[in-house]
Amino acid sequence: MNFKDDYSIGAHPRVIEALAKANSGLENSYQHDTYSVKAAGKIKEIIGNEKALVRFVAGGTLANLLVIAASLKAFEAVISVESGHINLHETGAVEYTGHKIIPVKGKNGKILPGEIEKVLEEHQTPPHMVKPKMVYISQSTEYGTIYSKEELREISRVCKENNLLLFMDGARLGAALTSPANDLKIEEIAQYTDAFYIGGTKNGGLMGEAIVINRPGIQKDFDYHLKQKGALVAKTRFFGAQFLALFEDDLYFELAHKANTSAEKLGRILTGKGVKLKYPVQTNQLFPVLPDKLVEKLQKKAGFYVWEKPDEKNSVIRLVTSWQTTPEEIEDFSRLLS
Amino acid sequence: MNFKDDYSIGAHPRVIEALAKANSGLENSYQHDTYSVKAAGKIKEIIGNEKALVRFVAGGTLANLLVIAASLKAFEAVISVESGHINLHETGAVEYTGHKIIPVKGKNGKILPGEIEKVLEEHQTPPHMVKPKMVYISQSTEYGTIYSKEELREISRVCKENNLLLFMDGARLGAALTSPANDLKIEEIAQYTDAFYIGGTKNGGLMGEAIVINRPGIQKDFDYHLKQKGALVAKTRFFGAQFLALFEDDLYFELAHKANTSAEKLGRILTGKGVKLKYPVQTNQLFPVLPDKLVEKLQKKAGFYVWEKPDEKNSVIRLVTSWQTTPEEIEDFSRLLS
Amino acid sequence: MNFKDDYSIGAHPRVIEALAKANSGLENSYQHDTYSVKAAGKIKEIIGNEKALVRFVAGGTLANLLVIAASLKAFEAVISVESGHINLHETGAVEYTGHKIIPVKGKNGKILPGEIEKVLEEHQTPPHMVKPKMVYISQSTEYGTIYSKEELREISRVCKENNLLLFMDGARLGAALTSPANDLKIEEIAQYTDAFYIGGTKNGGLMGEAIVINRPGIQKDFDYHLKQKGALVAKTRFFGAQFLALFEDDLYFELAHKANTSAEKLGRILTGKGVKLKYPVQTNQLFPVLPDKLVEKLQKKAGFYVWEKPDEKNSVIRLVTSWQTTPEEIEDFSRLLS
Amino acid sequence: MNFKDDYSIGAHPRVIEALAKANSGLENSYQHDTYSVKAAGKIKEIIGNEKALVRFVAGGTLANLLVIAASLKAFEAVISVESGHINLHETGAVEYTGHKIIPVKGKNGKILPGEIEKVLEEHQTPPHMVKPKMVYISQSTEYGTIYSKEELREISRVCKENNLLLFMDGARLGAALTSPANDLKIEEIAQYTDAFYIGGTKNGGLMGEAIVINRPGIQKDFDYHLKQKGALVAKTRFFGAQFLALFEDDLYFELAHKANTSAEKLGRILTGKGVKLKYPVQTNQLFPVLPDKLVEKLQKKAGFYVWEKPDEKNSVIRLVTSWQTTPEEIEDFSRLLS
Repeated sequence: MNFKDDYSIGAHPRVIEALAKANSGLENSYQHDTYSVKAAGKIKEIIGNEKALVRFVAGGTLANLLVIAASLKAFEAVISVESGHINLHETGAVEYTGHKIIPVKGKNGKILPGEIEKVLEEHQTPPHMVKPKMVYISQSTEYGTIYSKEELREISRVCKENNLLLFMDGARLGAALTSPANDLKIEEIAQYTDAFYIGGTKNGGLMGEAIVINRPGIQKDFDYHLKQKGALVAKTRFFGAQFLALFEDDLYFELAHKANTSAEKLGRILTGKGVKLKYPVQTNQLFPVLPDKLVEKLQKKAGFYVWEKPDEKNSVIRLVTSWQTTPEEIEDFSRLLS
Repeated sequence: MNFKDDYSIGAHPRVIEALAKANSGLENSYQHDTYSVKAAGKIKEIIGNEKALVRFVAGGTLANLLVIAASLKAFEAVISVESGHINLHETGAVEYTGHKIIPVKGKNGKILPGEIEKVLEEHQTPPHMVKPKMVYISQSTEYGTIYSKEELREISRVCKENNLLLFMDGARLGAALTSPANDLKIEEIAQYTDAFYIGGTKNGGLMGEAIVINRPGIQKDFDYHLKQKGALVAKTRFFGAQFLALFEDDLYFELAHKANTSAEKLGRILTGKGVKLKYPVQTNQLFPVLPDKLVEKLQKKAGFYVWEKPDEKNSVIRLVTSWQTTPEEIEDFSRLLS
Repeated sequence: MNFKDDYSIGAHPRVIEALAKANSGLENSYQHDTYSVKAAGKIKEIIGNEKALVRFVAGGTLANLLVIAASLKAFEAVISVESGHINLHETGAVEYTGHKIIPVKGKNGKILPGEIEKVLEEHQTPPHMVKPKMVYISQSTEYGTIYSKEELREISRVCKENNLLLFMDGARLGAALTSPANDLKIEEIAQYTDAFYIGGTKNGGLMGEAIVINRPGIQKDFDYHLKQKGALVAKTRFFGAQFLALFEDDLYFELAHKANTSAEKLGRILTGKGVKLKYPVQTNQLFPVLPDKLVEKLQKKAGFYVWEKPDEKNSVIRLVTSWQTTPEEIEDFSRLLS
Repeated sequence: MNFKDDYSIGAHPRVIEALAKANSGLENSYQHDTYSVKAAGKIKEIIGNEKALVRFVAGGTLANLLVIAASLKAFEAVISVESGHINLHETGAVEYTGHKIIPVKGKNGKILPGEIEKVLEEHQTPPHMVKPKMVYISQSTEYGTIYSKEELREISRVCKENNLLLFMDGARLGAALTSPANDLKIEEIAQYTDAFYIGGTKNGGLMGEAIVINRPGIQKDFDYHLKQKGALVAKTRFFGAQFLALFEDDLYFELAHKANTSAEKLGRILTGKGVKLKYPVQTNQLFPVLPDKLVEKLQKKAGFYVWEKPDEKNSVIRLVTSWQTTPEEIEDFSRLLS
C-alpha cells in the first residue's frame, strides 16, 4: 500500500515506449530537437497560446527557481503562502538566486487576494523594503486543494492592477485540471498567468516539467537563464518525447483523473468512518486527522508521511494516490481503519 | 519637534573633534590604523573578551548582511521575528547573499525560545528544507523593547543546545544597555552571542558600526567577506576615532541614557493623558495609539512616522527620542495632545 | 555525416532497455532508489573508493556549478584554463553562484602546474584578492587532449602542497580512459582528485552525469546543495538504471573506445592528406586546419562547427566522433577532402 | 617618505571643517539631506548633465559592485583589463553579485577597442556563453595612465555600436583630469559613459565616492540596489559636505594637480638617473624598474609596494604621490637612488 507520494512509481508504459522510439536517429539538441519542438507546439495548441515559450527541465525546483530568477530584478520579491513548495520544501533555492519570498498565511493552501493587497500596503517605503513583484501559487496546492476559476480570476485581477506577475507551479496541474471540483480550463490558466509549468514527473512522466512562459518580457532572455542555472540538458528529445506521449490521446488527463478518483474513494471511506479531513479532498492528496495509535498501526502496513501534529494524541497524515493506485490498496487500507 | 528618528541629527561634538584630531599624519589603512586598533582594544576591554575580532563598517545593513553571509553555508537560514530589521527593512539584503530568513511572530518585537524550537521541529527533512543555523535578534528591538538577562540566557541556551549561532543587531545597543529595565551587562551580551554589533550612527556617531565577532570560526575569514561585500573602506581611522570618542568617559552610555530619559518622560505624559502605548516604553522609541484626527494635527507640528493602522479610526505612530531631544520639544508635543 | 557533437545521437539501446526494466514497481526517490544505490556501489567499486559519495544529476553544467559551489567559501576562486567549459561555455553558471574563475592560458587545453603556482604567487594580499582554492580540469579537455598520469600527479602534488582542491570535469571521461594515449586508471583519478564526474550523456547515456565526491568535507552537506540548486530530481531510478547499464560488461568503455577509434582513423586520413591538426588527436575530437573554401564545401555535406579563425584564409573546424560514427561516414568525409 | 598609497593620509582640512559645520541641525537622511542634494547639484552642474543621478557611497568596491549589479541582467558580463581593480583587487565582489568579468590584456592598463570587438566576436553562441554587456575602465588606470579623448571616444563608439554599457571607475579621476597629458573634460566623460564615479577618498576626502548615473534605465531602480547592497547609510550629510568642500574653489582639482606634479618631478628624477619606468608617468603613480638590491635599501627608508618581479634581479615598484607629498620627500628619495 503506497500512499507516500506520486513519484515512487515509474512512468507510464507509453511514455517509456515513446522514449525508446525517440532514441534513434540524429536530433538537434538543447530544446531544438523535433520532439521538443513538437511537444512545445502541442502544448501551445492545448493552452491556446501560439506565442508562448515552452521549455523542458528535469525537475520542479529547477522550474521554480528558473522562472522566478528570470522574472525578477534583484530587489523584487515573490509572495507565496507559507506552505508553498518554494517557501518550505526547496532548501532556499529561490533565496539562493537572491530573492526574498514574502510568506502569507493563506487558506487551505491557497493565497487570498486580500493577503496580496495587504503585502502591497505594507511595502510602501522604497527603497527600504523589497518590492513585491510576483505572486506564486500552486495548482493543485500542497494540500491538494485547487483554485476555482473565480478565485484565480480574482488573484489575476489583483496582480494586473498592481503590476504583479502571476506564476503557477503546476507540478500537479493534471490533478487540478481533472478534479471534480475544477471549473478552470488550461487555456484560462494560460490567460491568467504570466508563467506556469505542467508537471510531468508526478503524472505519468519519467522526469521533466514543461515550463510555459506567456509574458513576452520573460521569454526574451529565458534561454540564457536556462543555461546559466544548469537546466539546459543536451538530449532534450527525451523530454519532448515524454510530453508528446502524455498529451497524445489525453493520457495526461486520464492518468490524473485515475489518481483523483482513487483519492475521492478513499476520502469517502475515511469520512464514512467518521475521520476528519483537514482539507477538502479535491485532487490526489488527503490529509486525515487520526489518533496516533492508529497511525502507528497503519505505518506497519502502508507507506505515507505524518504531516503535522495538531495535538498530543493525534496526527495529520498525508495520503497521496496515483494513477497506479489499485482498488485493492484502497480496500486494504480501509480495512486497517476499522 | 523631531521624533522621526535618531539619525536626522548630527554626531556629538566630541566625535567631530576626535575626527579632526585623527586627520593628521600617516596611518595604516583597512582597519589597521592606530585609531581602529585602539578602538577595537577598548571595545574588547569593555566587553571582557580579548579574543574578539572587532571590525568597523559604515552602516547597519552592511553589518547585518556581512555577519550573516560570513557565518552561514549556502543552505543555512537565519531565524528572525517578522518585524526584524533584516526581514522588513533591508530590501532583501540577506536574501541577496543567498540565505533564507525564517520569520516567526515574536512578542513585542522579541523572539520567544519556543518559537526557535518550533522552527527546528518543523525543519526535519534534510535535504529538502533549509537548515536553520542562526538566530538574529535586535537589542533594542524595532519596537524599542529589550531582552532581559533571563530572556537572553534562555535564547542562548536553546541556540547552544541546537547548535545555532546567535547574532545580535545592536544598532541601538546603547539605548538597551542604559534602559531602566535593563539587567544585562555588555560582557554578558558578548558571552551569550556569537557576534553582535555596537551601533554608532544612531547614538552619537557620524557613521559607523562596530562589529564584534566572538566565535573564532567566524573570525577566521571575516576580512575576506568584509572586502568582498564592499565594506572595507580605506581610511578606517575615521571609524576608529569615532568609537574612541564614544567610549571615552562613557559618552556612548551618557547619550543613550539621555535619549531614554526623554522617552520615559514622554511615555509618562502620554499614559497620563490616557493614551495607550502599543509596546512598553523601555528605550528611546514609543508607539502610542492615537485617533487619526489627532495624528493629523500632530503631523503639522512634529516629525514622526505613522507605523500601523490597527483600525479605521486610529493609528500607531512611532516617536523616537535622541540625545538631542530637548525638554521643550517634549513639552510642546505634550501640549499638542491636550 | 555527423561530426557536430556527441550528443545529437540517442542513448545506447541497452540503456533504453534498462530504463524500461527499471520502470516497474515502487522505488525510493531522491537518489535512494535501488538502481541509484546499486549504480553508486558499482562506481565506488570501479574507482576503488568505498567511501566516495556518488550522486546523479541531469547535466554537466549542473554538475560543475554544484561541485564548485558546494566546495568553496564565498571568497574562494577556482582556477581553470581559458578554454575550460566552466569558463567559456556555461553562461557564467559558476559566477552566478558567486565564485570567480581565474583563467590561465594552458597548453593544448591542459593546465600547467607552473600556471597554478603563478596564480598562487599573484594572490598574496589577503583580503584584497580572492583566495584560489580549487583547480578545475577536464578529462578529456575541450580540445580532446588528455592528461597523462605524470601530468595529473604533478597537478595533484601542487594542489596538495598548496591546500587546493582538485576537481575533474569528466563529461568525456570515457573517451579519456580509452584513449590510446592514456596511462591513467580510473582508480588513480579517484585518488588524485577531490571530486570528479563521469559523463553519461555524451557516451551512451540518455541524460545524466555521475558526480563522485572523494573528499569527506565536501560530501558532508552535498545533498543540501543538490536540492538547493534544483539538481535533485525525484525519480532518480532512471539515472541509476542508465549507469548500471553503462557499467555492465564495460559498455561505457566499449562505446568510448569505438568513438576514439573512429577519430583516430579520421585523424590518420587527414594527416595523410597533409592536413594540419591543431591539437594532437587523443580522443574523439579533432581540430583540423582547413582552407575556408574546403570548409564551405564540407559544410554542404557534413555537420561540424567552425571553431576558430586563425587567419583570413583558413579555419579550424571541430570534428567529433561518437560510438555511432560509421566507417562510411569517415570514408565519405575523406572523399570530400580530396 | 610615504609613497605607499594615496589613502594613508587624512582628509584635507577644509573637508574636515565642512564636516564639522554640517554637523549641526536636523537633516533628512538617506541621500536626501541638504548637503547631499547640493553636492549632487554641484556635480551635475560640473559634468553638464542635469538629469544625472548622483549617489554617495563609502568606498570604491561598493561603488563598483553596485553600478555593475544594478546595470546587468544575471547572464550579462563585464569586460575589463586583467589589471582592472574589479578583476584583481576586490576579492571577487563583482562575481559575488553573480556576474562574470571577461578579462582582456589591455595596454598600459588601458583596454583597446579591438579587444572589446574580439570579445564580442568570441561570444556568439547564445545561450551557451555569457552576454558581454558592459565595459569597465578606470581613469586613471591601475598603472596611473589615462585615456585620451580620442581613446575614450573610440571605446564609447564601439560600446554604442554594440549596445554595450560603459562604466568608468574614477577612484582617481581627479588625478586623470589634472594630468598634463589629459585632453578630456569631465563633461565629455559624462557624455561618453553610462555611469562613472568621482573618488573622494584618494583625493582630499575622508571617505566617500560620488556615483554618477547618466543612463536613465540604470537610474530608475538604483536606490533599491543601493539599500540592498548595504550602501545606503543614514547620515549622508557627511558625504555631501565632503564633496561640497572638494568642489568649492576647485579644491579637488588643486589637490590632484599637486599630487601629479610631485609624481612628474619624481619621474624626471628617476629618468634622469637612467631608471626605466614601466609605464608612462601621467598621474600620481610611478612604476620604476629597479635592481633588487636598491629596492631593499629603499625599503628601509621609504614606504612603497613591490608590484612585480619581471626577472630575478629586478623589481617593479609602485610609487604613489599625494597632495601631501613634500619636495623634501622627493629629494630624500632621490638621494637614496644615487
